[in-house]
Amino acid sequence: MSENRPQPAPSGGHPLDWLEIREKERVAAGLRRRLRPRPADEPGVLDLAGNDYLGLARHPRVLAAAADAVRVWGAGSTGSRLVTGSTDLHAELEAELAAHLESEAALVFSSGYLANIGAITSLAGRGDLVVSDAINHASIVDACRLSRARVAITPHCDVAALAEVLAQRTEERALVVVDAVFSVDGDLAPLAEIAAVVRRYNAVLLVDEAHGLGVVGEAGRGAVHAAGLAGADHVVQTVTLSKAMGSQGGAVVGPQRVVDHLVDTARPFIFDTGLAPVCAAAALESLRMLREEPALAGAVRARARQIADGARGLGLRATVPAGAVASVLIGAPDAAFEAARRSAEAGVRVGCFRPPSVPDGISRLRLAARADLTDADVARALDVLAEATKGL
Amino acid sequence: MSENRPQPAPSGGHPLDWLEIREKERVAAGLRRRLRPRPADEPGVLDLAGNDYLGLARHPRVLAAAADAVRVWGAGSTGSRLVTGSTDLHAELEAELAAHLESEAALVFSSGYLANIGAITSLAGRGDLVVSDAINHASIVDACRLSRARVAITPHCDVAALAEVLAQRTEERALVVVDAVFSVDGDLAPLAEIAAVVRRYNAVLLVDEAHGLGVVGEAGRGAVHAAGLAGADHVVQTVTLSKAMGSQGGAVVGPQRVVDHLVDTARPFIFDTGLAPVCAAAALESLRMLREEPALAGAVRARARQIADGARGLGLRATVPAGAVASVLIGAPDAAFEAARRSAEAGVRVGCFRPPSVPDGISRLRLAARADLTDADVARALDVLAEATKGL
Repeated sequence: MSENRPQPAPSGGHPLDWLEIREKERVAAGLRRRLRPRPADEPGVLDLAGNDYLGLARHPRVLAAAADAVRVWGAGSTGSRLVTGSTDLHAELEAELAAHLESEAALVFSSGYLANIGAITSLAGRGDLVVSDAINHASIVDACRLSRARVAITPHCDVAALAEVLAQRTEERALVVVDAVFSVDGDLAPLAEIAAVVRRYNAVLLVDEAHGLGVVGEAGRGAVHAAGLAGADHVVQTVTLSKAMGSQGGAVVGPQRVVDHLVDTARPFIFDTGLAPVCAAAALESLRMLREEPALAGAVRARARQIADGARGLGLRATVPAGAVASVLIGAPDAAFEAARRSAEAGVRVGCFRPPSVPDGISRLRLAARADLTDADVARALDVLAEATKGL
Repeated sequence: MSENRPQPAPSGGHPLDWLEIREKERVAAGLRRRLRPRPADEPGVLDLAGNDYLGLARHPRVLAAAADAVRVWGAGSTGSRLVTGSTDLHAELEAELAAHLESEAALVFSSGYLANIGAITSLAGRGDLVVSDAINHASIVDACRLSRARVAITPHCDVAALAEVLAQRTEERALVVVDAVFSVDGDLAPLAEIAAVVRRYNAVLLVDEAHGLGVVGEAGRGAVHAAGLAGADHVVQTVTLSKAMGSQGGAVVGPQRVVDHLVDTARPFIFDTGLAPVCAAAALESLRMLREEPALAGAVRARARQIADGARGLGLRATVPAGAVASVLIGAPDAAFEAARRSAEAGVRVGCFRPPSVPDGISRLRLAARADLTDADVARALDVLAEATKGL
């Protein structure tokens, strides 16, 4: 939030004039963002920018479940989860999410952002320690700050540094927070090692499976499950319903006593309107499809690896995808922006990540695979990528 | 978050054992909460607990618009608003929200909670001052804390105290944040006076219209509009789409330059999946119905006053509703809980607010009116209220 640091406005000027100064700074840095609403129908466009990893957001079964839910439940949940905002649909979704992740319980929030804020602020407070990976998602960063715990940032995936921070702490309690799969590069946290260290130092581990659920491990049960940690009594997971589940919302999954504690104390659970039933229904149907077709998870991972391998074959720097995301490192924000623009012009939409989304300052193209991509889709994406990055 | 303050766990014990200690404390204080999922169909139940103030969450037009949106757009928005999560529907909703509130621009978030976090953390930072009313909503409290600004809490609706804090500040910039209609008691902030003080001291005013939109003022344009402040260049509003709009989500409404700034800097905008198109569609249809039938807003206010007057007629202490909410003060948490339980048993669902939702510690029944209540509904609610509060 360095952009929000004060800078005395000319005294007597309008109290919002500083916004223009900041805007000019962002324009100069190539960081001005524009909303580009998309139409419903984009014939010929290959979308590799969205996070609909399993290709279920428009699947007929998911749409039918969503339309049914609208008819049966109405448009909104009408209240907070503790008043009128919990429906049987929410309860079913929570039970099936917990079952799929082989955990005791789950609790649905209206967004993954709020699930992280709720879980972290309820599990750590003043006088506690939170240890957070240097490139954790913004929602984790905000949640750590909001918790009032002491926050220690460890270098990306540095398990030795984590052990040292935990060993040297003066706090009785410590919560370690890490993304399972990191959003920009799609790399995997070494969860088995992290969980062992967390256990050794009697701490609690919270893993954000936003990019893990539906994608990583057998049947897309996520990185915690793949690391042999399903149901571990010192591990809590957060998930999002807006990526592989093709819908909206988030959830906390973990020991029953953690979920009970969140029901009583998590402010973004207590004081937020419950997830719309239609979103719960869509996520539930996606989850059921994943359980019926567990191979969907392997399919999206294979496509992501194909894309990354292909990009390297073009002489580009690409990450090794652990999940659905292949990241191509470009460098300067305007070069990445230009490559994404050219690519979109050629009908292939890719993500473009610039500061502050990329903490190392290296702007990237982010290509998200989907389980329903074809060989022809991948070939086309790579042809367009070759053209779009020429001379940058 | 006092409940999260550390309390040394028995050394060597499980790192989550402290949860049970806290649970026992809440049980003893009558503050243990339980989720009670509701079924789709509850014949004979009169719901005065939800926030579907205009009765639109199940209106056939809203359901048709939502079902259409599912078919046309799919279940989720598939990405953050700056990547794939902005659709033409979001743009239409933003334009019509801004038009209805007679403001320059609007920006939709996935929840009202996140709209407040985004607006406040982007408009105030380290070195600034934020002044917040003592009983502002939890999302505002969290947002203030997260902003890193100095936070001054003023007594509830105390304009003189506000003026003093602003006059004595050492910070160049100040942001004043207030709920338009307070969620528990349904009382109205003195916005004209507040805005005048904010203007005098060259600050910015953010008004949360969560309970104002669709309910307060001509055509439900909200309390800012009713106070003659629509389009004021030092006023920003946040709204929720999950109450009178019958859907889910939130928005920031205000000067174009504020919205532009949020697009570039608001972390829960940039790093959160965009609102599901189906939710945008439902909110948009509700908004259109409100614009076609502006009398809906007056209807819900009239019903709320009838309920409050009736409760007083029963010898109960009730607030004077400025919007949709009539609050009946009970006292002890377990008495309020018992009254709500009896009421629900008799088929009238009312809200029950206990600490920490009621900052003054007085537990309340919260009866939310709807525009579609009948005289018979109101009479029945009052009969049940009389029985349910007997002897408490």
